[in-house]
Amino acid sequence: METSERGFEPDPQSVTDLLGVLAYGELSAFDRMSMDARMAPSMSGRVALSQMAAAEMGHFRALSQHLARRGTDVEIAMSPFVKALEAFHDSTPPHSWLESLVKAHVGDGLAADFYREIAEWLDPETRDLVFEVLGDTGHSAFAVREVRRACEADPRLTGPLALWGRRLLGEALTQAQYVVAERDALASLIVTGSGDLAGIAALFRRLQLGHTGRMKSLGLA
Amino acid sequence: METSERGFEPDPQSVTDLLGVLAYGELSAFDRMSMDARMAPSMSGRVALSQMAAAEMGHFRALSQHLARRGTDVEIAMSPFVKALEAFHDSTPPHSWLESLVKAHVGDGLAADFYREIAEWLDPETRDLVFEVLGDTGHSAFAVREVRRACEADPRLTGPLALWGRRLLGEALTQAQYVVAERDALASLIVTGSGDLAGIAALFRRLQLGHTGRMKSLGLA
Repeated sequence: METSERGFEPDPQSVTDLLGVLAYGELSAFDRMSMDARMAPSMSGRVALSQMAAAEMGHFRALSQHLARRGTDVEIAMSPFVKALEAFHDSTPPHSWLESLVKAHVGDGLAADFYREIAEWLDPETRDLVFEVLGDTGHSAFAVREVRRACEADPRLTGPLALWGRRLLGEALTQAQYVVAERDALASLIVTGSGDLAGIAALFRRLQLGHTGRMKSLGLA
Repeated sequence: METSERGFEPDPQSVTDLLGVLAYGELSAFDRMSMDARMAPSMSGRVALSQMAAAEMGHFRALSQHLARRGTDVEIAMSPFVKALEAFHDSTPPHSWLESLVKAHVGDGLAADFYREIAEWLDPETRDLVFEVLGDTGHSAFAVREVRRACEADPRLTGPLALWGRRLLGEALTQAQYVVAERDALASLIVTGSGDLAGIAALFRRLQLGHTGRMKSLGLA
């Protein structure tokens, strides 16, 4: 049994859950970025997004191999999370190139902050893998640059994009709650790792702060 | 100046042209495979196609770096070929999962055979790169398996898919002629490399034979 540095032993199922939701997140990110690449207004934007999408599949492969070493098939590990992630995407379809960039930046950033917090409670090997696959593929800087440039050229874009960012946060938290409510092992891990209700509240405050920081970086706060 | 093993010095522009059309081919393949991944009838199909699409971007990066070492930006090298490749794709939109698999297998195979013939006339470094990026990402075996399985389950699919393969060959040759007609350096390379009109005729016969072999492997000959 692997022991975390925090002194408790996470249920192996919670580790599988975390790796599974991450893997499906990478596959979805690939999907979305490759679709966005097709909408890119320039060839350099198309190339940049296609390369970032491909990098997400590198992360997917790392997660899939780590799961295989633990004796779990990636498809089985992902399956409990497909519905919630698809529901998030179905409820927040971007209607423009800029909306899709904001969504990727805000959604991936929020997810990454959340998964990193959880990974801190796991064995070092899993933790390092999670940090590695959450490494930015360059998408953030790209999104920030494109969104800021567009808003500088046309400041009327700022208000609607700021509202869009707020809606994304709400939908993401809603879907995250559904996921945790259905996955007992993951829920226990979060409760045990956070320590108590005050710990969970502090975790949510940190996620909110990270979101605000990203909206600021986009020039949308 | 780089000298080929065939004893003539290809115009550097023809090398740039070959690398440019290959790079755009990889970007298009990424685009198409990632779109097909979304249509896949199973999660394992979706994962497999997404991984193959990502591998195409690895090839794209290798071509882009080789072009950069030669002092050429990949976007500039690709630009003369965007129109013809998009025209090919616009004129042959697949209407089903199986049609898109046949198209990828037949189209990529034909292109690969053609580019490999040309690469034989170039300096060893460029030739090896071309062979490397034309390496199969696993798509062929995947397409063959899926198409054969579907046709065994429902033999009525065979006839229409065989016709589809024939149409793809025709459209591909048409667009290839447009490309060569517009790119003098590439046209000269093919004429010089082939030796004479009989050499060009033999090249086209080999391409036709390769196509027939692929249709057979799909069970569609």
